[in-house]
Amino acid sequence: MSIFSATFENSRSCYHRVYWISREVTMNDEDLVLVNDEAGVRTLILNRPEALNAFNGALFNALTEALLAADADNTVRVIVLTGQGRAFSSGMDLVSAGKGPAYRYGFPDMVDVMVDFSKPIIIALNGVGVGVGSTIVGLADFAFMAASARMRCPFSSLGLTAEAASTYTFPNLMGRQDASWFMLSAEWMSAEESLRTGLVREVLPDEGFLEAVLAKARKMAAFPVSSLRATKAQIMAPHKDNMKAAAKSEDRALVSLIKSPAHKEAIAAFREKREPNFTDIDDS
Amino acid sequence: MSIFSATFENSRSCYHRVYWISREVTMNDEDLVLVNDEAGVRTLILNRPEALNAFNGALFNALTEALLAADADNTVRVIVLTGQGRAFSSGMDLVSAGKGPAYRYGFPDMVDVMVDFSKPIIIALNGVGVGVGSTIVGLADFAFMAASARMRCPFSSLGLTAEAASTYTFPNLMGRQDASWFMLSAEWMSAEESLRTGLVREVLPDEGFLEAVLAKARKMAAFPVSSLRATKAQIMAPHKDNMKAAAKSEDRALVSLIKSPAHKEAIAAFREKREPNFTDIDDS
Amino acid sequence: MSIFSATFENSRSCYHRVYWISREVTMNDEDLVLVNDEAGVRTLILNRPEALNAFNGALFNALTEALLAADADNTVRVIVLTGQGRAFSSGMDLVSAGKGPAYRYGFPDMVDVMVDFSKPIIIALNGVGVGVGSTIVGLADFAFMAASARMRCPFSSLGLTAEAASTYTFPNLMGRQDASWFMLSAEWMSAEESLRTGLVREVLPDEGFLEAVLAKARKMAAFPVSSLRATKAQIMAPHKDNMKAAAKSEDRALVSLIKSPAHKEAIAAFREKREPNFTDIDDS
Repeated sequence: MSIFSATFENSRSCYHRVYWISREVTMNDEDLVLVNDEAGVRTLILNRPEALNAFNGALFNALTEALLAADADNTVRVIVLTGQGRAFSSGMDLVSAGKGPAYRYGFPDMVDVMVDFSKPIIIALNGVGVGVGSTIVGLADFAFMAASARMRCPFSSLGLTAEAASTYTFPNLMGRQDASWFMLSAEWMSAEESLRTGLVREVLPDEGFLEAVLAKARKMAAFPVSSLRATKAQIMAPHKDNMKAAAKSEDRALVSLIKSPAHKEAIAAFREKREPNFTDIDDS
Repeated sequence: MSIFSATFENSRSCYHRVYWISREVTMNDEDLVLVNDEAGVRTLILNRPEALNAFNGALFNALTEALLAADADNTVRVIVLTGQGRAFSSGMDLVSAGKGPAYRYGFPDMVDVMVDFSKPIIIALNGVGVGVGSTIVGLADFAFMAASARMRCPFSSLGLTAEAASTYTFPNLMGRQDASWFMLSAEWMSAEESLRTGLVREVLPDEGFLEAVLAKARKMAAFPVSSLRATKAQIMAPHKDNMKAAAKSEDRALVSLIKSPAHKEAIAAFREKREPNFTDIDDS
Repeated sequence: MSIFSATFENSRSCYHRVYWISREVTMNDEDLVLVNDEAGVRTLILNRPEALNAFNGALFNALTEALLAADADNTVRVIVLTGQGRAFSSGMDLVSAGKGPAYRYGFPDMVDVMVDFSKPIIIALNGVGVGVGSTIVGLADFAFMAASARMRCPFSSLGLTAEAASTYTFPNLMGRQDASWFMLSAEWMSAEESLRTGLVREVLPDEGFLEAVLAKARKMAAFPVSSLRATKAQIMAPHKDNMKAAAKSEDRALVSLIKSPAHKEAIAAFREKREPNFTDIDDS
């Protein structure tokens, strides 16, 4: 039980990155991301509702594979990413971390594949988004948020730091003050505030939420994919390298913080069902 | 009848750029941009009201010449750019494209001259702004928008892509999500949403709109031009090269897309007065 | 009586920067910045209420020393910067400029120390912020603003230009149009507009303002400083060099403008208690 696995090797990269490995595979990997195609829109549904769609190694692997397949498929012009059940994603899986076989693709691969994705990515934030369930929003072209949904970055409360290039994408979307507050304060952010600060494009009613997002996606998917790709490529051009560099730098910081006394106190408090006390720790 | 001329040579540049050439010159070129001076404020009025101030080669040339003259004139401290009649500008001229003599200055020159303009540029968006009639807003220091005005980027619906450095300026002004939506969705944007997303500085009532903008401009023009220039130069310094690079890159993408099956289908549908069907085109 | 001293040497730097030197030291330098510690939050209070906390050389020196001490002190996890009395800061001191001994640290040092500060900086904008009393907001991680407070950048009206890296930080926070307007127009900006444009994180009631900010600061200071530092470092990484470069470039422009006919006219008008007339000056 650890937020990030104790195993950090990533056999596929020359740099160190946090790598999530889980022994617990509760279902067929293909079922972890449900896929639905309609009128050029591919919907990818995170499907671990019993775990509030928390990301374990299997889910990172399955989502990355689904993204690669969608980008390569010429019949797909827009993708929509959403969550099964009442949550979008509760973030890294606290239960199944540190267990399981190494998958082909890990968290850093998912980030890179989203940064390089050539067609529009729409996130339909149907419910709670915590940790990577909120930072992933910065990798989308558009996020639509259900009125009752909320987001939270719990990093400070866990002795950790942000990830998924959010230290770059969030200040760009929200301005540095709002982004810093969201990432440092560990406070919840409502749909209304997510809209005001620019982290999401639009807030839509809970009732009929996914269908409303899909209607927008289908409208966009009726346009030529050559245009969608060209305009997105222009918009992303000044940011891609910065996003990848931020993700790598965040991972290095995370690898260091996971060994810190503060993170150990956070884990101990979690196990002992008490509030952590960071003020007596010398972690300067 | 094509949105961008079939002729792309730009004798003045070493790189390729879309160049608009029109044989149809319906009026004296000097009359295409009306000029009015008052108290250090030079107002430049796009004057093709019968064509909703659509840009043809003659208008790009006339506006560029007017901008160069204004920047060189020490009695001018602030400029205001607006449109004659009910529109600001309906964008590239669909009717007169591909005809006419080559002018001294073309669209890419206009972009460069606006990026390099040393004194404050105020856009008074008096009415509809479509295509370059909206992307030009990203080149201004301030845009004021009449309450009933609207903007639209029709690029996706035409099988084309954005221009005038807007793929750089719009994400900086609006954040990447709102900018991507505006540029990819081809949807209209109201004055209220233009203000909320940061694309314009302020929305003013239709009644007395230009006079209200001019009053603000005159107030600014009472300040020393040395200060206005110095502060603008500092603000623009990190962006000028990026804006020019974006404009060049957009032009390259545009040159490629104009030959695409998708753009041909858009033109065919326009001629045949039917909806385009992009979904059966292999333009991946 | 000049806004910036006639003496620009900065013995500590190899590049030119505006340096404020004051002979008038009305109180013990230690009293210029009051310090209060509580629960990991160090509050720094600008304490020249009789001068609306205007910055003179002594105050720049005292604040820089206080910042360096706070960053080095491991018991400090968050700092709050506010003003004694009814103002936050009225900016550069018009009365005591050009007098006094050289202090160890000057304005450019304060800027660098704030850019490099490793822990969260919260500004509690308790009242009026003018000139550097507003541009300093761009150096904070978060600004909270009392509902009745106002900000103003009077640079254009003085024949000068912006400072403290605000030509870089303000466009990043507010977008280029709102930032340019605030910095060029010399108009007052209300708390409501400061919030809408993104220059401050939140507006709080005047009643109990500082205590409300301190409550937020204490909550953040309960988190591990290792996390706060790591996340802030990631967020600041792409901006630090740009901020320092902007500050240096602004200073060079300021050194030039202080000698300009426009600034001399502003000073003459100030002395003669009349409106300045810049329109007859050849300052192109």
